[in-house]
Order: sequence, then structure tokens, then C-alpha cells
Amino acid sequence: MTNRKILLTEDEMPRQWYNILADIKLNPPLGPDGNPIKPEDLAPVFPMKLIEQEVSTQRWIDIPDAVQSVYRIWRPSPLVRALSLEKVLDTPARIYFKNESVSPPGSHKPNTAVPQAYYNKISGIERMTTETGAGQWGCALSFACSQFGLECKVFMVRVSFDQKPYRKSMMEVWNGRCVASPSNETRAGREILAKFPDTPGSLGIAISEAIEAAVSDPSGKTRYSLGSVLNHVMLHQTIIGLEAKLQLAKVGDYPDVIIGCAGGGSNFAGLAFPFVLDKINGKAIEIYPVEPAACPTLTKAPFVYDHGDTAGYTPLLPMHSLGHSFMPPPLHAGGLRYHGMAPTVSQLVDEGLLTPKSVNQLESYAAGITLARSEGIIPAPETTHALATVIEEAQKAKEEGREKVILFNWSGHGLLDLGAYDKFLAGQLSNFELPEGVIAESEKVFAHYPKPAHLKRG
Amino acid sequence: MTNRKILLTEDEMPRQWYNILADIKLNPPLGPDGNPIKPEDLAPVFPMKLIEQEVSTQRWIDIPDAVQSVYRIWRPSPLVRALSLEKVLDTPARIYFKNESVSPPGSHKPNTAVPQAYYNKISGIERMTTETGAGQWGCALSFACSQFGLECKVFMVRVSFDQKPYRKSMMEVWNGRCVASPSNETRAGREILAKFPDTPGSLGIAISEAIEAAVSDPSGKTRYSLGSVLNHVMLHQTIIGLEAKLQLAKVGDYPDVIIGCAGGGSNFAGLAFPFVLDKINGKAIEIYPVEPAACPTLTKAPFVYDHGDTAGYTPLLPMHSLGHSFMPPPLHAGGLRYHGMAPTVSQLVDEGLLTPKSVNQLESYAAGITLARSEGIIPAPETTHALATVIEEAQKAKEEGREKVILFNWSGHGLLDLGAYDKFLAGQLSNFELPEGVIAESEKVFAHYPKPAHLKRG
Repeated sequence: MTNRKILLTEDEMPRQWYNILADIKLNPPLGPDGNPIKPEDLAPVFPMKLIEQEVSTQRWIDIPDAVQSVYRIWRPSPLVRALSLEKVLDTPARIYFKNESVSPPGSHKPNTAVPQAYYNKISGIERMTTETGAGQWGCALSFACSQFGLECKVFMVRVSFDQKPYRKSMMEVWNGRCVASPSNETRAGREILAKFPDTPGSLGIAISEAIEAAVSDPSGKTRYSLGSVLNHVMLHQTIIGLEAKLQLAKVGDYPDVIIGCAGGGSNFAGLAFPFVLDKINGKAIEIYPVEPAACPTLTKAPFVYDHGDTAGYTPLLPMHSLGHSFMPPPLHAGGLRYHGMAPTVSQLVDEGLLTPKSVNQLESYAAGITLARSEGIIPAPETTHALATVIEEAQKAKEEGREKVILFNWSGHGLLDLGAYDKFLAGQLSNFELPEGVIAESEKVFAHYPKPAHLKRG
Repeated sequence: MTNRKILLTEDEMPRQWYNILADIKLNPPLGPDGNPIKPEDLAPVFPMKLIEQEVSTQRWIDIPDAVQSVYRIWRPSPLVRALSLEKVLDTPARIYFKNESVSPPGSHKPNTAVPQAYYNKISGIERMTTETGAGQWGCALSFACSQFGLECKVFMVRVSFDQKPYRKSMMEVWNGRCVASPSNETRAGREILAKFPDTPGSLGIAISEAIEAAVSDPSGKTRYSLGSVLNHVMLHQTIIGLEAKLQLAKVGDYPDVIIGCAGGGSNFAGLAFPFVLDKINGKAIEIYPVEPAACPTLTKAPFVYDHGDTAGYTPLLPMHSLGHSFMPPPLHAGGLRYHGMAPTVSQLVDEGLLTPKSVNQLESYAAGITLARSEGIIPAPETTHALATVIEEAQKAKEEGREKVILFNWSGHGLLDLGAYDKFLAGQLSNFELPEGVIAESEKVFAHYPKPAHLKRG
């Protein structure tokens, strides 16, 4: 009987993360004056250890023992041969997935939440703040803070706060405090509430509140945390791909195609970056970040300098962006509703090392159902975008009669998103189109911003 | 660094279940005439293969390859050394748990749902029916049926159906059909609805509907399934304890104390029975089934003949029972709200091989929070009853300065029960007392029933 799961022991878990900044160049983040920002400018927001990782160009960075110890609650995560899916699709492809849904919060997010909490702890920080949209990130940071005895405050976008009460409950079980954003706890929140008392909130507002709550603490013992986009977040996530490489080697396989969904880019980067290194060194691999057709950052938007948040408080980052005022449609895959994309992922697309794809909402849910009824696990709405592309690739392999090896990232489970499946099965979901003129409109804005250079390696 | 997880490869998974009926005797189930029922009497309800297992006294029963293949989606499940809990409690005890929350439906229930679906499939059955209270069992059977291409219909107690809509969604993702009970789909349901249109429903009614839906199908291709209590269910669950034994042996440990929560008895039996065999053969082990203080079947109720369902449709089973008309208080641990207990577990208590314990609701939730903030996983409300007893035992070991080895079963996660944690954290839960006179009242009823004999081994 072929094994479904390829396991590593805890002692086989990689002891270092892979830093792609050793192998590619990035345009620098720019401050309000249009000049590159300096690491120390970020000190009120992040602890120095994380700022150092953000700008480091060292290829391998040690994973501290205390972080490894918490990782071991659920890591190494299983690499799974999707035997049942292969059978349903009757494909000659060998399909593998990294199962990141096995963490306590149910996604890949704690891979970075845990080291972020750890570095804050050893820097003398006592309290962390963050924002969360659909809730996965707020849960992961609450979990991580509970492991290191830190307080955690999460500003959760009001509409999600009301729609997904279990997310708040989950954070509170881990001793996190979750408030609906906009809240009365920050000046930014109070100003918005005064103007728009019934606002559903937005990630942009929640980021502003979380940053303000961190930098305005007079004790200086509070810092802010971001769950995607930044270089140090991608760094921490590479544990996924590094484990996957070891696991595939155990069965003598190597991927022809690598697939992950991409919102801010972190689960995709986590799986893909260690293989991007191989591709840079000459391996022939196709690597597909997959995004919603209704929020097509990589597939349609230009490579520009833009703010990471809606209010424009963050530095300008070099990335593919639909414009920081773009309001993504109300997709159920909340983690993919982001106007921009990690600068590292954007840079790799600009260099042609990645081939972005997009799928629409109905196609992705249909794929989710196919996987739930074959491999058993109910995927997160975000993950279903990768799944739709996996099915397409497996069918192509069948047409071509090729024994292709497909590797994808099962970024999270959908147990707190079952309401969306309900709507899909009842025929109440639809596809969203990108409104006409969005790209042209955003390009008008970008015309006034500095332009990132098209950098090349070597 | 000490490993947290002790893993088995798929090839190391046991190939046989352990049947405790080889080692203990049971009083026979009795039909309406007071005489022992014959296996063939059950043929309209269950497929013959499962009836054979129900009455078998063969010690080891082969796990079919097709069942092993599906088990391998999540099995062997990890045995976890609860290092973080040990640290929090500062105990010399070594604490291990079997993590049964890793299955796709999130509990131990698929250990029996999968073989039940398989035996029905190979018997030419096309459709299965069952009831579910809190929803764990209905989800597990829907998952199992989706693996073997069977239809599945679940009658879910109305009050839970309304309170936990995600359970229905989960069943439907796996192609199960879930209807609120009482329903208009059966005579039993219609009669109740005519009399009590606003009834919240009960497990007793739902069982009646599920049995009727199975036996009344004119095609003869539908059978009923039960998720606990019966001998064949306990048999299938022993995979838990058999794996745990192999895993403990890998680290050279053996339990002094074994703990599991008990409602109908299946997750407890699954972990404990393989060790009960050792106890019968002379090993010194304490084995604790843990039940809610407000539904104290094993700790307070007599060992009698009683019906398994409220309506009295099932045979009389020899068990500890609070009386089939006992209505357990509205505990959030829905899986422990059962008036009776598996005959095998009841028999072992009668023989003094098990030492039942009870804990109240607030104590169990407090333990759940302690575990979530140390080991990370959010436990099911049922599991928290075992956890409270684990903490008590670990504290006792500290007082005694003993290096005791404690093994318990983490029967499921609480991700679809977060609303109950919310209430607990908000101080809105309370303990329930067993109403005065319940035992005396039930004993009056049992006075008219046959009495089970106090059987001994050998």
C-alpha cells in the first residue's frame, strides 16, 4: 500500500530559514520624502531583531531553539501524496501537498507568528498589536503570544467581527483581546466612527489602529506585527518549502510544478522560495502563484511603488498593486482580498521566475468540494484557489500522458468558513468581475509616484 | 530537545482491532419478550458483517485493506508528550495524549464510521441513516460515506441543528444530507410534530427516525448506523489504544493511569481496552472513565437492563443507566449527554476493572483553557472532562513526588464549539446538579425489568 503521508521527525526539522534576499535584489522601501527609509525609522513599530531580518541578505538564518520548540507542537507538517485525488482525476500526475492546516490555529500563519512573538519577548516587549481581516492572522498571533506570555490585541475589521464570531472566541481562548475596528480605543478609530458610525471597517483602518495602539503606548513596551507582505514574514514561512524538499527527497521525487494561493504572498512564498533558489540555479520548474480573478494583483496590475495600507501610513513598497484605494469585492477568501503583493513575490514575477494565474470564485469552491470528498480535509476558501489550478494541471498531465509531479500548499482548513460552503452548495455564490477601468484608474495615481527599477540578478 | 510527538509510520499501523469480548462476558441483549435476541433479528437494521462483529468473541479481528487505506488519511494519529502542560503544572508526571482531533471531521468518530461504511458498501447497501446530537457523529459518517460512495442521511436533533449550523454545512460538504429531527420524513417524526410542533427534539426521537428511515426503505438498500455504545463500535475504536501502546514502547514508557471522557463510551474504550487486557493479565494500572457530574451514569446510576433510546425501540441492554426517560441537563458537552453507557464499559465497571470519575462543567472548561494555552489545541467540550481529571492526577503526582505516567485521549477539537468557550469566558456558564430523586425514580422503573447477572471472568 503506497503511503499517503511522508513524515519527518522533529529532529529532522530544518534549523534555518532561507532568506531569498541573498539571491535577488529589491527596490528599497521609500519614506514620505521619497528617499529610502532607514532600519531605525521602523524601531517604534517593530523590535530590532525583526528589522534586522527584514533587511538581511544572509542566505540562511538560524531558527532559535525556543521557536523550534513551539513549532514542534505541529511541525514538521505532513507532506501528503494526494492518492485519492489522483484516482478521482485518473491522472498520471503524482500530486503532493504540504498540509499546513494542522497547526492549532488551522493555517500556515503561526510559522511567522511564533518567531515574531519570540523576538518581541526577548526584546522586552510585553504586548503586541495587529489587525486581522477574516481572522486567521489574529488567531495565529493570539496563539503565539499565549505561548510566550505576551498580551495580544487584535483589531478585527467590523464586518468580519460580526460575521465570524468564532474567530474572536478562538483568539480569546488563547488570551488574545479582539475588538471590532474601527474602535473607540484609538484616535484613528474614533475619527472614522465620528464621520461614519455605521462603517463596516476595512483592513486599512484596522492597520492604522493597530500601529497607533503600538506606537502610542507610553510604556514603550508594545509593538505592532504584520502577518504577510514583509520580507521577514516570507523568511519565516520558508520552513514549509524546506521541509517539503526533505520529504520529497525521501520518496525520490522532485516537483515539476509548484502551486500556492497568493493574497499578500506568505503561504505561497513559504512553499516556493526554497525551490525558486533551485530554479535560479538552473532547475526547470514551473511556479504558479494563484490569485482571485476579481483581485488580480500579479496577473493584471502594474509593478509600481505603492502603500501597503489604504490610509497611506506605511512606506511605499515596490510591488504589483491595484492601488491602495482599490476595494476588493466581497470574496469569501478574505485572505486574498489585498490590493498589493509581497515585494519579494512581485520582484520574482517581474523577473519572470514565477508565472501567476488567476481563478474565479465558483471554480475555486468547486475544486474545494472535489478535494474535501477525496482527500477528506475541508480546505480554507483561500486554499481552494490553489486547488483549482492543481486540478487543471493534473488534467493537462492526463491529456499529455505525462507523469508530472505537482506540489501545492494546503494553506489552511475551512472549518470556520463553512458558512461560505453552505452558500456555494445552495447556489448562492457568484463570480466577481474586476470592474472596468480599475487598472487605468490606478495607473493615473501611480503616475505621480516614484517608479521601481526593473532589477536583475547577478 | 525532547520530542513532543511520537509518530508511527503508516506501515506500523496495527492491522487488527482488539475485541474485548474474547476476555470478558456480557449479559445478552434482550428482546421485547424478555428473551435474548438472535443476530438475525438485527438484519433489517445492520449488515450481517457488523452483526457478526457485534457478537464475535474472537480476540483479534482483521482491519480490511480498504479501511486501512482510508484510516491512513489521518492515522496513525500522533501520541503527544504534553511537555508544555507538564511545565505549567510543574509536575514530575510524564503526561501523554493520543491526538484524535487530527481526523478530517475532528474527532475519534471516523475510526468506526469508516469500517461501518465499508461493510455496508460491500454488503450491497447504497444508503446509510443515523442520528446525531451535537453533530460530531453525523459529520464522521458523512465523511466515511463520501469515501465509499454511499449516500448518507443524518437526523440531527432540532435544537443542535439550529444552534450549530456549521455541523450541517460540514456534512453537506461531504455530500451528507442533514435534516432537523423531528422531521416530516418519517412517521415517528410526523407524529411528534403533530403533537408538539415546537419540540426541540431529542436523541431518542432522532434514533427512532433514523431506524425507521432505514428499515422502511422498500429497496432494502438502506441500513442504520450507531456511533457509540455497541460492541462493534468499541472494537473499531481500539485502534487508538493499540497505536498508543506501540508509541509508548518506542520511548520505553508504560502508563500508570489511563483517562478518557465517557458519554456512550467509545473514545474511552478505544484508548483503554487494549490496556484493560494487560490489567486482566496482571498489570497494575488505574483506568478512569470520566463523565459529567450532571449525567453520572457510571458513578451514580445502577447496573441494570435498559433501552438504548428514549422511545424504547432498541433491545434491553445490560448497562449503567439513569433511565431511558432521563433528560440530561443542557451541558455543552453534547456527546456526554446520554442516559446509558456501553455494555462493555458498564461490565468492566461492575467487575471493578475501571474506576469512574465525574467532573462538573466549570471545572472541565477551566481545564480546557489551561490546555489550549499550553498544548495549543482547543479541546472539544467532551474532551475537557478528561483534561480536568488529568490535571488533578498530575497535581497529585506532584504532592506525592511520583514520576507517574499519565495517558489520556484527546478525543476531538472544539473548533465548532467555540460559542461555548465564549460563554465560559464571559462567566455565563454554570454547573448543573443532578436533580434530587433521579436515581430513586429510575430504580422504580428498573424494578419491573429483568436484572443483569454480575458476571465474572474465567
